[in-house]
Amino acid sequence: MDNSGMDKSGVLQQIYDILLERKAALPGDSYSARLFREGEDAILKKIGEEAAEVLLASKSGREDALVHEIADLWFHTLVLLAHHGTPADRIFDELQERLGKPGLKDRRKEE
Amino acid sequence: MDNSGMDKSGVLQQIYDILLERKAALPGDSYSARLFREGEDAILKKIGEEAAEVLLASKSGREDALVHEIADLWFHTLVLLAHHGTPADRIFDELQERLGKPGLKDRRKEE
Amino acid sequence: MDNSGMDKSGVLQQIYDILLERKAALPGDSYSARLFREGEDAILKKIGEEAAEVLLASKSGREDALVHEIADLWFHTLVLLAHHGTPADRIFDELQERLGKPGLKDRRKEE
Amino acid sequence: MDNSGMDKSGVLQQIYDILLERKAALPGDSYSARLFREGEDAILKKIGEEAAEVLLASKSGREDALVHEIADLWFHTLVLLAHHGTPADRIFDELQERLGKPGLKDRRKEE
Repeated sequence: MDNSGMDKSGVLQQIYDILLERKAALPGDSYSARLFREGEDAILKKIGEEAAEVLLASKSGREDALVHEIADLWFHTLVLLAHHGTPADRIFDELQERLGKPGLKDRRKEE
Repeated sequence: MDNSGMDKSGVLQQIYDILLERKAALPGDSYSARLFREGEDAILKKIGEEAAEVLLASKSGREDALVHEIADLWFHTLVLLAHHGTPADRIFDELQERLGKPGLKDRRKEE
Repeated sequence: MDNSGMDKSGVLQQIYDILLERKAALPGDSYSARLFREGEDAILKKIGEEAAEVLLASKSGREDALVHEIADLWFHTLVLLAHHGTPADRIFDELQERLGKPGLKDRRKEE
Repeated sequence: MDNSGMDKSGVLQQIYDILLERKAALPGDSYSARLFREGEDAILKKIGEEAAEVLLASKSGREDALVHEIADLWFHTLVLLAHHGTPADRIFDELQERLGKPGLKDRRKEE
């Protein structure tokens, strides 16, 4: 996939794939490998922290901070998915399915 | 974009685009329009809730619940980005940039 | 204990005692009884929500909102303790013990 | 007040009073003084972290962990109150007032 094109969101799948490699290899100096070694609660604690930081970044009015913290939050949810061996595609499929339901896609047709 | 292909992550951009439409049109019976009307704190409160639900879903060991709650968390961060008028691309770019830094991409080369 | 006196914090123990009664009697129209029936995850979800609301109340600069949300957060942690059958005294003892350690009490002596 | 007696909850007021001293003196090696220097967002970030840790401690089934994390959460809400100069009594009064309303005290009479 060409990430320079229209759709840059493919980076999420790329990161997920790298995380699976890390989880298998557990390289000693990798941040994500350290999280995988520490286990589920360490990853979940980070998700709690990052969610709080998203709130604070939003209230700060600084767009750079908001972008940074949402990226951090998404990254750590990908780490959690990799920890559980749950494909990132499961999330994309779930969101895609919602697009086909009233509330998102049907609504769009009306607009 | 063809979401049936390899990269399903494009759904995030699709949802973001729909959210921008909702924010402009504020259709009365739309969930996201209600959030936009209620404003930043209502959106942030939902992000806090969804983060807690991701923690509980992960500990429950039920993959379906985990997928559902992470989808919810990502959806509400997209609502927050749309609220601020911050393009979702900013997050993808931030994550792409990290791929090029030690800790993700450089590590991948070594593996 | 006389709550009109110097120490008003006894209200926490009072509430905890009432919560234990509710947990035993599960009166149908009681908010806390509903939480006890729904179980641990429902209580934890509320704690996550209330923590997010404390953050937002603090940033709002409205003292009434802050007081309200911290009271809510403490209340729901008491519900969690009652759910587990863990005496509220355990928390007071833990905090009392910290008063005797460097960082709180010892520091106080130096000042 | 005698904390060795029936009501141990007075420790919350004691800690709050010490925190006010720290906020005034800002002793260099005090944990709370460091939080006061870093400011509101640092304190709020800790509250978000501690709330996540309460969730994880509860799910762990380890009572010691739960007691430790709730004590941490309460401690950091006291730091937040001291930061804002909001008396801890405001929280006790708010909770006392709820005792007199249907849902807590009135319910108790019925039971």
